Amino acid sequence: MGKKIGISSYIIDNIYIISSSGVVGPKEKDGPLGKYFDYSYDKLLVNSKSFEKSEIELHKKAIDIAINKANINIDKIDIGYCGDLTNQIAVSSYMMRNISIPYIGIFAACSTLTLGLINAAFFLSSFGNYALVSTSSHNCTAERQFRYPNEYGAQRANTFTTTVTGAGAFVLANEIYDNYLNNNKVKLKITKVTVGKVVDGGINDSQDMGRAMAPACYHTIKTHLADFNMNVDDYDKIITGDLSFYGSKLLIDLFMLDNIDIRNVHEDTGMLIYDRNKQTVLSGGSGPGCIAAVLGGYIIKKMLNLEYNKILLCATGALMNTTILSQKETIPGICHAVTIETVQNKIGDEEN
Amino acid sequence: MGKKIGISSYIIDNIYIISSSGVVGPKEKDGPLGKYFDYSYDKLLVNSKSFEKSEIELHKKAIDIAINKANINIDKIDIGYCGDLTNQIAVSSYMMRNISIPYIGIFAACSTLTLGLINAAFFLSSFGNYALVSTSSHNCTAERQFRYPNEYGAQRANTFTTTVTGAGAFVLANEIYDNYLNNNKVKLKITKVTVGKVVDGGINDSQDMGRAMAPACYHTIKTHLADFNMNVDDYDKIITGDLSFYGSKLLIDLFMLDNIDIRNVHEDTGMLIYDRNKQTVLSGGSGPGCIAAVLGGYIIKKMLNLEYNKILLCATGALMNTTILSQKETIPGICHAVTIETVQNKIGDEEN
Repeated sequence: MGKKIGISSYIIDNIYIISSSGVVGPKEKDGPLGKYFDYSYDKLLVNSKSFEKSEIELHKKAIDIAINKANINIDKIDIGYCGDLTNQIAVSSYMMRNISIPYIGIFAACSTLTLGLINAAFFLSSFGNYALVSTSSHNCTAERQFRYPNEYGAQRANTFTTTVTGAGAFVLANEIYDNYLNNNKVKLKITKVTVGKVVDGGINDSQDMGRAMAPACYHTIKTHLADFNMNVDDYDKIITGDLSFYGSKLLIDLFMLDNIDIRNVHEDTGMLIYDRNKQTVLSGGSGPGCIAAVLGGYIIKKMLNLEYNKILLCATGALMNTTILSQKETIPGICHAVTIETVQNKIGDEEN
Repeated sequence: MGKKIGISSYIIDNIYIISSSGVVGPKEKDGPLGKYFDYSYDKLLVNSKSFEKSEIELHKKAIDIAINKANINIDKIDIGYCGDLTNQIAVSSYMMRNISIPYIGIFAACSTLTLGLINAAFFLSSFGNYALVSTSSHNCTAERQFRYPNEYGAQRANTFTTTVTGAGAFVLANEIYDNYLNNNKVKLKITKVTVGKVVDGGINDSQDMGRAMAPACYHTIKTHLADFNMNVDDYDKIITGDLSFYGSKLLIDLFMLDNIDIRNVHEDTGMLIYDRNKQTVLSGGSGPGCIAAVLGGYIIKKMLNLEYNKILLCATGALMNTTILSQKETIPGICHAVTIETVQNKIGDEEN
């Protein structure tokens, strides 16, 4: 049943990710991971009525694909944990009108995905059998809410991140999956989680979210490693999302102060999803749809191919809103971490 | 360790509410429950810098009181589940900068309190020992975000609810509390929960939130009673929050169609907190701070006095945002339900 370990970490037993999806918009399709996503749209206006309805449709598409891959009826899902960046997470809530399952709304900005995985893992450790976790973002819903309407042509700093148009969805199951018929020889297990604290690095520039979140990311990774008495090299990859270029650089520097070089093991989904040299994205990608689409569409496939066997997924969030920033406040960050490991089926299972 | 029952309900074992608080602003202090709250402010500008900072301070005050009453160090709290109405739940997140515990942000509008209690109960069923749940709202942060700045003097419909300035906080514990030294002869236990689905009754008038949420409330109560094979009379009180006058009337009417009269058992915290005949509140109170302050400040005291021994707490939320409403959408509602029961200590405990 799992147990608490250290300051804010938990050992998780027998919780599996049984299916995943990554769905993106046009700019992400044109990026280096384009071919890995399960579905991509050629235009930002997925639904002609509004950008918000476009994000709702794109988010639902990710869920439909993940449910379909899990090969279970949606009614089997005990709870859906969903979130996004729009005010009052309205995209997730409106989407849930059309997916009639019990719904828990969660918010941790761009770290919402790992928050959802953690909550679902806690839930499935005692109750139910299946849970859904999904998050999304859309460049145009985020831009007009947090920054300026595109039409203004406001100039951007180099540290500015580009909100990803994308969504990822994941179906989790508990030990019921031990006996689940499946064609995969490899299963994915959530084995450890660390719940983050709010950390404010003192940055008040909303065009520099990567560096605003890096101290929280550093804090959570350090706590995680200390709680489990591990080193960074115990992981094949430590994947952050989304610090992008400038935030990743600060994270690397913070670890360097401890004489720990994370460069060989660290990747950031905000850097993976775009080619910064060829695409106009400035520091890289961001938004809860970024790490979700990259995990669901790309990383999980690499794990199923046994290219990575043990990763630490560290989604990071910047927790301000525009009203509070206009009151000259700094930007608090948070980071929630989840360990995902591959498990190869026992020989007796191979005929499945 | 609890188990799933029926469609979306769960039996919860050995999870206690070990302390609570209710903190309010001036209008709520002047209302019928004024004397019950643990703390009240004489003005809306609790912190002179902004309404947002005022809500942060008021929310933190509720937590400080609850932690103090629980007589434990804040470091003992494994996770804090907090939420509010501000965009990106920034009030909760900024407050958490000053309360250095692991933080899970949740959102279900005015139903955030029961969502928090449910998540904390799930968590404590397998992990950790103590969790904090708190929610807040502030009339002035909500007014300027969802409606019009007060200075506009916009005319309001009779169905309009008044956002409560208030917060409530609750410390939950698992079986560790069975042996807890305490002076109370009565303990409060969370015994059953039902996770809500999104239900859209087709109302698009943001000045009629009570009636927008009533169908979701009806749906969750019906599901709860069916899942546990219970009747409304099995509860001393079914407490909704916050349907207020017009929403409560619709809820009563919906049950009447099933030939069930809930009038003797039903109370609504949006009606309890104000005197509609003497105070200018129109339909009544609303906001996640309403049910939280009324539960923490008033209802829990009635339970500790054994005036109520078994209540069903049904917090209801309206899940729109202003952008989506301007796109001519209707308002989806949700309701999450929690059963709280009194347990009297065994005779052997009485000397504690």
